[in-house]
Amino acid sequence: MPRYKIVVEYDGTDFVGWQKQKSGPSVQEELEKAIKVFAHTDAEVYGSGRTDAGVHAYGQVAHFDLPEPMDAFQMRASFNALLRPNAIAVLSVEEVSDDFHARFSAKQRSYIYKILNRQAPAILDKNRVWQIGLPLDVPQMQKAAQLLLGKHDFSTFRDSECQAKSPIKTLDEMTISKRGDYIFFLVRAKSFLHHQVRNMVGSLVQVGLGKWTVDDFHEAMHACDRTKGGPTAPASGLYFQSVFYDD
Amino acid sequence: MPRYKIVVEYDGTDFVGWQKQKSGPSVQEELEKAIKVFAHTDAEVYGSGRTDAGVHAYGQVAHFDLPEPMDAFQMRASFNALLRPNAIAVLSVEEVSDDFHARFSAKQRSYIYKILNRQAPAILDKNRVWQIGLPLDVPQMQKAAQLLLGKHDFSTFRDSECQAKSPIKTLDEMTISKRGDYIFFLVRAKSFLHHQVRNMVGSLVQVGLGKWTVDDFHEAMHACDRTKGGPTAPASGLYFQSVFYDD
Repeated sequence: MPRYKIVVEYDGTDFVGWQKQKSGPSVQEELEKAIKVFAHTDAEVYGSGRTDAGVHAYGQVAHFDLPEPMDAFQMRASFNALLRPNAIAVLSVEEVSDDFHARFSAKQRSYIYKILNRQAPAILDKNRVWQIGLPLDVPQMQKAAQLLLGKHDFSTFRDSECQAKSPIKTLDEMTISKRGDYIFFLVRAKSFLHHQVRNMVGSLVQVGLGKWTVDDFHEAMHACDRTKGGPTAPASGLYFQSVFYDD
Repeated sequence: MPRYKIVVEYDGTDFVGWQKQKSGPSVQEELEKAIKVFAHTDAEVYGSGRTDAGVHAYGQVAHFDLPEPMDAFQMRASFNALLRPNAIAVLSVEEVSDDFHARFSAKQRSYIYKILNRQAPAILDKNRVWQIGLPLDVPQMQKAAQLLLGKHDFSTFRDSECQAKSPIKTLDEMTISKRGDYIFFLVRAKSFLHHQVRNMVGSLVQVGLGKWTVDDFHEAMHACDRTKGGPTAPASGLYFQSVFYDD
């Protein structure tokens, strides 16, 4: 059976998340419905990772198998027509070898988190940012972010419902930059614990607000205890950016 | 009477434009309604320039007079509360001298135009870009854009309903850059003819698509005839960015 890799953009605002759930529309389900109409088959779509309700994606990656080969270019155009008016677009479709797996073959995943740091509410980026009215100290957040790099026990930033076997992960990038009123967090690792990015950002914001020193952050992190961490940053500011695979 | 300058962000999608019209909700009218509730007065809000239906603003500037001085900080917070759920935010309120005029004191105005150059529809930037599926040749558009700089008769890019006395304008900046699938046009001048930015972008896209050479663009521009210009680029990609005044 031929296997296809797709890259997907979506606005997570009106979805219960990536994964199929009885409680409402999911990105996975809408993709499976489009494939069924196009290819007359019940294909299961495997994502590279789940995203929560309200979390967006610029480049989620997924794969599925079809009983017969079909034209990739035509598939993309048809999927996008069938997906309307859902806030999902298939950016590319590509035939891959049958040992490719969107989740298990992934070498690196990257996320962006966006904060709008101003008093006025978000308008052009409504549902796309975490709006914080109090001024954030970016250099202090950058200092604290350095502590997250490398291999650590990330229990402080791990959701209680996380199903990972181990809280030990290696964080390869955590870059914080400011442009105008926007603060961007670029985060990259092989894999993440449940809510890890949002919990790390929520804790860094404690530093940015001056509620925590960088030492407080260090202590919270090494307590390896979720109750010592900062609040979970809202889903609306988080974007699944891209997944890296070996060629 | 004290005069106040405000900087306003809005999503133009659901407005008939900046200016009050009987046909539907306008940004100007919503601001005047908020001022009326807050200050119990019928103030007229003067914008630095009109924007069409669907055109957005990061930093429209306007002014209005109140019978009595009021606290600027409190005004901003109240305006933003009163403006909900309209897609309008007041970013700042500042008392200015009574010879300040949002429109007549403006020295420079800048716009951004955004194209999403890919086959898949815009999702996270729906209603925020002009999505063009065919590949655009950015270096050729950059060459043609150079011809627009300086003082010219811009009749080719002037809407038939334009009320300006003269078609002669001076364009101070037209920078085209590409980032990923996005193409950004930064445009700056003291003032613009009606639809000038959208008509210039529409004509540059003719070059980007290879329908026109740079020479064709030059010829169209110097024909000083709207019928020789390219199509008007959609409103959704246009953002009124900022207005510059003398201190």
